[in-house]
Amino acid sequence: MSTIKKAKRKISAAILIIGNEILSGRTQDLNVLFISNWLNTNCGITISEVRIIPDIEKKIITSVLKLSKKFKYVFTTGGIGPTHDDITALSISKAFKVKYNFNKEAYSILENYYGKVNFNNSRKKMAKMPSGSKLVYNPSSAAPGFMIKNVFCLPGVPSILKSMMPNLQSFLIKGLKTESKTISLQTVESRIADYLSKLQKKYLKRIDIGSYPFFRLGKVGVSVVLRSTSIKLIKKCEIELLNIIRKSKIKKITL
Amino acid sequence: MSTIKKAKRKISAAILIIGNEILSGRTQDLNVLFISNWLNTNCGITISEVRIIPDIEKKIITSVLKLSKKFKYVFTTGGIGPTHDDITALSISKAFKVKYNFNKEAYSILENYYGKVNFNNSRKKMAKMPSGSKLVYNPSSAAPGFMIKNVFCLPGVPSILKSMMPNLQSFLIKGLKTESKTISLQTVESRIADYLSKLQKKYLKRIDIGSYPFFRLGKVGVSVVLRSTSIKLIKKCEIELLNIIRKSKIKKITL
Repeated sequence: MSTIKKAKRKISAAILIIGNEILSGRTQDLNVLFISNWLNTNCGITISEVRIIPDIEKKIITSVLKLSKKFKYVFTTGGIGPTHDDITALSISKAFKVKYNFNKEAYSILENYYGKVNFNNSRKKMAKMPSGSKLVYNPSSAAPGFMIKNVFCLPGVPSILKSMMPNLQSFLIKGLKTESKTISLQTVESRIADYLSKLQKKYLKRIDIGSYPFFRLGKVGVSVVLRSTSIKLIKKCEIELLNIIRKSKIKKITL
Repeated sequence: MSTIKKAKRKISAAILIIGNEILSGRTQDLNVLFISNWLNTNCGITISEVRIIPDIEKKIITSVLKLSKKFKYVFTTGGIGPTHDDITALSISKAFKVKYNFNKEAYSILENYYGKVNFNNSRKKMAKMPSGSKLVYNPSSAAPGFMIKNVFCLPGVPSILKSMMPNLQSFLIKGLKTESKTISLQTVESRIADYLSKLQKKYLKRIDIGSYPFFRLGKVGVSVVLRSTSIKLIKKCEIELLNIIRKSKIKKITL
């Protein structure tokens, strides 16, 4: 089987959000949406599960091991900063039973960034990671993320995380991108449910048809989302859907 | 042990978000933040884990069973509407090996709401749930959520979910509320990391000290968050923190 053929598969990954601040409702997570869209658009990788857990070593170890076995890749966010509650790197070293020590390259990047005089212990901590890790460079604030086995550890701050995502690309095998088409309708779900159900049965396992009611900008309606790795199939299904809609005198609307 | 004593415990719960639209990055989840804050404020219940999974029966069954064993309560969102992709009620019936059939009260609520003539099959579907469920009333759009064992099934649309939360209160045992105090500082994490680490060691297991860098409204700094079930302890710890801050000539700022 050639490399090209190998790449034409669906690749599933998981996100592990590590942080008391997300669980407690103090902070709105924004990373799931960004990572998921970025991975699909740039690498054809699908997020199939997300877990949000507290900054507790045992929970990090268990979750990382579970997810790294189940999925091709795991992306963690949070817990790689300089403070006492940043325990992701240590916990993952324990999970994979490797040493937790200074990464020479990370150490030198951080020493350069802060200057020798200001390179204190908590800043040095950001250079400690599981032995054998590869670095994910950070163009915003120097402190790198890292990759160990199939797990990528990224920071929790959304703007820094965003700036690092392009540096993941070289590590990742590309999969089949999921295309999608949204058709918004001036109706309620329970009026179109039967049509959609029949359409879903016809395209079973080839197209994923989602139905999402919305109430925004003074408009009430339903967004029907067609998702598939084949644009051709989506277009075919869309034409059928629009025919049904027209016959049922339901209006299409633009959001 | 009296009921009052029983209630003075920490109660841990989980949220299970069911929905392809959240995993695919189409829709920003807003329910975790809302549910978590609401439960802590109104019932003293702490969210200790969140999972986001797709609309796939097998995954719903596995996740519900895992979480319902691990936590006092599980709150699911999504998948209880009228369309083909709403499979939460059926999946949870299978998980708990109970029948999936019409709940008489839900049927009558929905029949009243839509009127006999317009009460079509997809609307009727919203009255089907695991046998033995108790209803969680919905003041927005009639279709009720339900409780089976320690699992509460709620809708995915945030505005509807919000309106239903007060109707959960009578089902839930109250726990110890987590109080919190945020102190925002004009500094960087790596300057205060050592102080915070010592403070955390001193208050180990009694106060959870979190450190969160922020970049907003043109201000750069760190929010230190003290969390505990004891307001007294938080105040004591805050005074110590403010002393350290003053001695280190770090400014407190208001966001």
